[in-house]
Amino acid sequence: MQRLSLAALGLCLSLPTFAAEGMWQPGQLPELEQSLVDAGLKVDPEKLTDLTKYPMNAVVGLGFCTASFVSPMGLVVTNHHCAYSAIQYNSSAEKNLLNDGFLATKLGEELPADPTQRIYVTTEIRDVSEQIRAGLDQLDDGNAIHQQVDARSKALVAECEKGGGVRCDVYVIHGGMQFNLIRQMEIRDVRLVYAPAQAIGKFGGDVDNWIWPRHTGDFAYLRAYVGPDGKPADHSSANVPYRPDSYLKVNKDGVQPGDYVMVAGYPGRTNRYRLGTEVADAIDWAYPSYMQLFKQQLELIASSSAGRPDAALKYAATVASLNNGVKNFQGNLDGFGKLDVVAEKRRLESAMEAWLQANPDAAPGYAEQRLQLDQVLAQQRAQRERDLLWGRLWRSGIFSAAGDLYRLSLEQTKPDAQREYGYQQRDEVRIEGRLKRLDRRYDAQVDRALVADLLRRYLALDASQRVAELDAWLGRGEGVEVNLEAKLDVLYGATKLGNSEQRLGWFGAKSSQIRGADDSALQMAVALMPAVLRLESESERVKGLEYQLRPAFMRGLIAYKRSLGKPVYPDANNSLRVSYGIVEGYSPRDAVNHAPQTRLQGIVEKHTGVDPFDATQRQLAAISERRFGSYVDPELGSVPVNFLASLDITGGNSGSPALNAKAELVGLAFDGNYESMSSGWLFNQRLTRTILVDVRYMLWVMDAVDGAHRLLKEMRIKPQFANKQ
Amino acid sequence: MQRLSLAALGLCLSLPTFAAEGMWQPGQLPELEQSLVDAGLKVDPEKLTDLTKYPMNAVVGLGFCTASFVSPMGLVVTNHHCAYSAIQYNSSAEKNLLNDGFLATKLGEELPADPTQRIYVTTEIRDVSEQIRAGLDQLDDGNAIHQQVDARSKALVAECEKGGGVRCDVYVIHGGMQFNLIRQMEIRDVRLVYAPAQAIGKFGGDVDNWIWPRHTGDFAYLRAYVGPDGKPADHSSANVPYRPDSYLKVNKDGVQPGDYVMVAGYPGRTNRYRLGTEVADAIDWAYPSYMQLFKQQLELIASSSAGRPDAALKYAATVASLNNGVKNFQGNLDGFGKLDVVAEKRRLESAMEAWLQANPDAAPGYAEQRLQLDQVLAQQRAQRERDLLWGRLWRSGIFSAAGDLYRLSLEQTKPDAQREYGYQQRDEVRIEGRLKRLDRRYDAQVDRALVADLLRRYLALDASQRVAELDAWLGRGEGVEVNLEAKLDVLYGATKLGNSEQRLGWFGAKSSQIRGADDSALQMAVALMPAVLRLESESERVKGLEYQLRPAFMRGLIAYKRSLGKPVYPDANNSLRVSYGIVEGYSPRDAVNHAPQTRLQGIVEKHTGVDPFDATQRQLAAISERRFGSYVDPELGSVPVNFLASLDITGGNSGSPALNAKAELVGLAFDGNYESMSSGWLFNQRLTRTILVDVRYMLWVMDAVDGAHRLLKEMRIKPQFANKQ
Repeated sequence: MQRLSLAALGLCLSLPTFAAEGMWQPGQLPELEQSLVDAGLKVDPEKLTDLTKYPMNAVVGLGFCTASFVSPMGLVVTNHHCAYSAIQYNSSAEKNLLNDGFLATKLGEELPADPTQRIYVTTEIRDVSEQIRAGLDQLDDGNAIHQQVDARSKALVAECEKGGGVRCDVYVIHGGMQFNLIRQMEIRDVRLVYAPAQAIGKFGGDVDNWIWPRHTGDFAYLRAYVGPDGKPADHSSANVPYRPDSYLKVNKDGVQPGDYVMVAGYPGRTNRYRLGTEVADAIDWAYPSYMQLFKQQLELIASSSAGRPDAALKYAATVASLNNGVKNFQGNLDGFGKLDVVAEKRRLESAMEAWLQANPDAAPGYAEQRLQLDQVLAQQRAQRERDLLWGRLWRSGIFSAAGDLYRLSLEQTKPDAQREYGYQQRDEVRIEGRLKRLDRRYDAQVDRALVADLLRRYLALDASQRVAELDAWLGRGEGVEVNLEAKLDVLYGATKLGNSEQRLGWFGAKSSQIRGADDSALQMAVALMPAVLRLESESERVKGLEYQLRPAFMRGLIAYKRSLGKPVYPDANNSLRVSYGIVEGYSPRDAVNHAPQTRLQGIVEKHTGVDPFDATQRQLAAISERRFGSYVDPELGSVPVNFLASLDITGGNSGSPALNAKAELVGLAFDGNYESMSSGWLFNQRLTRTILVDVRYMLWVMDAVDGAHRLLKEMRIKPQFANKQ
Repeated sequence: MQRLSLAALGLCLSLPTFAAEGMWQPGQLPELEQSLVDAGLKVDPEKLTDLTKYPMNAVVGLGFCTASFVSPMGLVVTNHHCAYSAIQYNSSAEKNLLNDGFLATKLGEELPADPTQRIYVTTEIRDVSEQIRAGLDQLDDGNAIHQQVDARSKALVAECEKGGGVRCDVYVIHGGMQFNLIRQMEIRDVRLVYAPAQAIGKFGGDVDNWIWPRHTGDFAYLRAYVGPDGKPADHSSANVPYRPDSYLKVNKDGVQPGDYVMVAGYPGRTNRYRLGTEVADAIDWAYPSYMQLFKQQLELIASSSAGRPDAALKYAATVASLNNGVKNFQGNLDGFGKLDVVAEKRRLESAMEAWLQANPDAAPGYAEQRLQLDQVLAQQRAQRERDLLWGRLWRSGIFSAAGDLYRLSLEQTKPDAQREYGYQQRDEVRIEGRLKRLDRRYDAQVDRALVADLLRRYLALDASQRVAELDAWLGRGEGVEVNLEAKLDVLYGATKLGNSEQRLGWFGAKSSQIRGADDSALQMAVALMPAVLRLESESERVKGLEYQLRPAFMRGLIAYKRSLGKPVYPDANNSLRVSYGIVEGYSPRDAVNHAPQTRLQGIVEKHTGVDPFDATQRQLAAISERRFGSYVDPELGSVPVNFLASLDITGGNSGSPALNAKAELVGLAFDGNYESMSSGWLFNQRLTRTILVDVRYMLWVMDAVDGAHRLLKEMRIKPQFANKQ
């Protein structure tokens, strides 16, 4: 009983004595030793800094998610939603693996994932700041700075990737204060081993997305395969399971409320060091504007596809993404409302600047560069409506297809290293895929409705935000009324890009051919391309200046924080990070306490029989018969399903292994609570929680529901239930 | 810390060892002594049985709510929503007491409530079962039984009320097994003393209705006045405050989680002893049907008043009531969904009937009478659609006005004692009020839309549910299509009852005058009255049979429960009852725990500035400056606002004093949680909670926010804050 009451007290009254905030670079952890020990860590923090040793070398990236090795045979565990495309890729109307789940009963049955699926094993992180920044401080032209950073980065990457089998990338730290070159082994033969039914793996679906209490079995297993020589290879039946240098030890006892827990993974992006003015812009303008636009687009998609189920189906993914955006923006705004982020940012900036005035040597030139940064950002903000509409316009079906085709034709004339990011040789497969996919995601009538709305919004902008080429294309002029509908009649009436064969026929065409094309959409792309390039260059200029000016701010901040004895972790940038905290619930509002663990009974409570709350009969039977085995938590009287921990994660961390105080696997991170949505901007210790799937639930599903005995044994877990049928 | 952790454990894991279920007759309490003591009661239960002694003689009724004396000068505390009409009655556009609140700074400033406002002090409960039931068992005609019960009840009431100043009523217990004659002193001069601003008294409004966590200051003060001779009198400036025999002692320390608490009050109606078949009917038919109808009526009101704000305003109260109904029905269905009430009822009935078969002497004739009851109820169910529509029809503006006028004219020809309930002399003021009020609640177009819908539904009914008179009035016949719109053109076009003066002109008219009236609505009432009377007689026949048959069921149940050592409390019937339990939260679903107390900070969290979450600046300032005084709960670090207790209450209990283990006032009951909505049918110990306002919040608002020092002193509470301005 002691345990639960402590947890309950934790929820209501006390805060942990360490700061759960921080996505730490592994190398920073020794600096945090005292805090780690206070939180409960039982291994030497030094052990966590070596990327080539346990446990860090078992933590791998999927590009958009995190995963980890859990057996000597390259078995990889990640979230169900991270393995989603691998499952979907192997599904058909007759054999719906999403619905039914999938279990390979032997190696030979493991299914190849989508050929673009990768597993990345980080093998080296190298500081290349000196190479990249050399002489940059002498430049003051933003475009020149950007060009230098770009060219040097590409050169470093090319050098690093020589020999093949690896992927290298340059990661920007502290806005350009530091650059890291990261090398990752790139495993190209990835196979689907096991996924529970969607009714487990995605239980609660979008309804429960970002929501606690949660009951989602968000886990699945992949396996890394390599050539017989042990090197990364394209998929082949001759390939063999990869033998990782180490793999995570699974601890089937999980963790209890109050226990230490950490996750290692690849968080994508945070904005923790943005200025108060930038946060204010996000709150007052960006989120509300995007939300209003997205809602309008949702209405337009609904009305323009009404009565046409085929068209509606094509926009299902777009609708899901817009809805997700709306929920995210709303969540951010709700979070901001609770926290008064701007005030907090400003307090921090004031305190820091007061300190810097008293300690001018800590960050020389700070004040002047801060002023410049403010000016650059203000210039950028002056064009924000234009940039929003321009960006969304080029995401529409017709603009994106025509734009991609013409842009690629222009970039293909350059040496590969000088091509624009996203249009290099290695990107061509992806561009072709995008052009193919349009078939299933484009309807002229819906696209036109969306484009018409964006252009109408554009036409209403202030003169200062006009784009000359777009005005010219629209036929705007002194005293001339734009006839938008007539323009769109031509754009959609005189293009053949809606036809898949025609569209793909232009893939790889020369720019001169496209310029001569008798196609309204391609002509539009040709007419607007100068503006695309100009706006891109404008934006690169700003980026270049930011490489100069943000580090100045960060130097000031780091010096100030150091004076307070606080190390500074960099914003997330897709590189390997560690976050640590404890298992604990929270109080979302007065008199409501969220316990840190959910139970199997909660699945029964939520079960309606209707997707996304349609638990399988096999699972319901196992619950009602209380076939819990040793996965039961005696205090809960049930198998723990999901749990909460005070950890600092963000998108990209999905699938991250949760490790206990001894660095053993006890679960997987897969979501944040609703209150954490705004944590990209400001981490709130009292409210931000990570949602994880408990290892005991994973093992219980594998054992009592799905009979995945082969995998249990591979992970050294002794099955407790007879294999099904 | 101990306390909170115990409470948290209580929430999650343990149940109290006593049953919180039960609205006990005061006389039953000694039977429950052990359970009361286990729960924590510190006074002799015998003390609670004497209606003429502390504390029971301090608990009074308002007719629709409960209240209590809290000073020797007749000061009465109740809910804000129970004093609502008294506040509204004294409000005007210029002086909006609802918005601003009201505080009389001396006796002379206290404002007379609506003249119909009463305070009832129960002075005697007498068992009159023998008088009423004498010889009834020999009758088998339902109408004859009903007539006997009705006539004998009226005679007893008339006899009891002789001498004036008292209100007597006969209360049916266990469906007619027992009848009690209850005498109450009827205080007719009631004045408004103090009400906080609506932003406190109704904070959260309809949004938070039935919702926990709650932050509503649902309290207000009235005062009972009597003539200089100490006897009840109509309002007069010569009247003086009533000096009650006793009044509740206010304990300003409130109660803590886990503490004993009880409420005494006048719960209106429950259905705890309905049969499984009746509950199934409610779940499968009644709630869904009413909900569907109410939603349709809401849509019709909206569409038929669109663009006409005056009409919309007239239906504001109707809309609120329909919405409240929908929420209630939905809450009931949600509750049923959680509990499987029907199965539980059937289990109980089976167990009981098995026991009765083994113990046939316990309730002789049970089986046969149970069969008869089932038959009677089945007959009634066969007409349920008709009865639903017929009932709603006579609640419409035009039907109700015309029906009241003609019915009254018919009843006025009889001796008062023989008149139908609701049309006796004492009811005439109320009928006139209803006719007057129609001005503010009637719009012909909206009324017609509602009536048309009801009649259309009626026309679709099966032949077995037809009403001949209504068919005739509608012009239905073999092969004749009813022209409903034409009929309604006449009904609404050729009546003057929509006009207030004309309508009231018919009040008190002779039935022959009405029969000769050249008014389409009155003619309709005349045409349909035979059906009204026939259906009424049918329903009285059923009631009469139920007086016979329900007691048979109850005798069986009581005998069975007694065999298990469980006393049986009667269903609520507006008479004085006691419920006891402890202060405790609950878990509405897996991993969510509701703490049993809310805090002032929760008001700040909910505050949006927009009604119903528009806390006053005075209050917000007092909170932010932490002017808590000794009303603070040190464990909470705040003043407790509302609290939860495992108590069994229902409508009518609003305003009931919450008493601690020593029978001192520690709060007021004012609502149930959402999960308790279905508790009218089945009490669920794990989920059903009463929501109460904490006495510390009441006193804090009076002291720190509103400066109600006079009243605090009258209740022997020493003010701690300087009086405002």
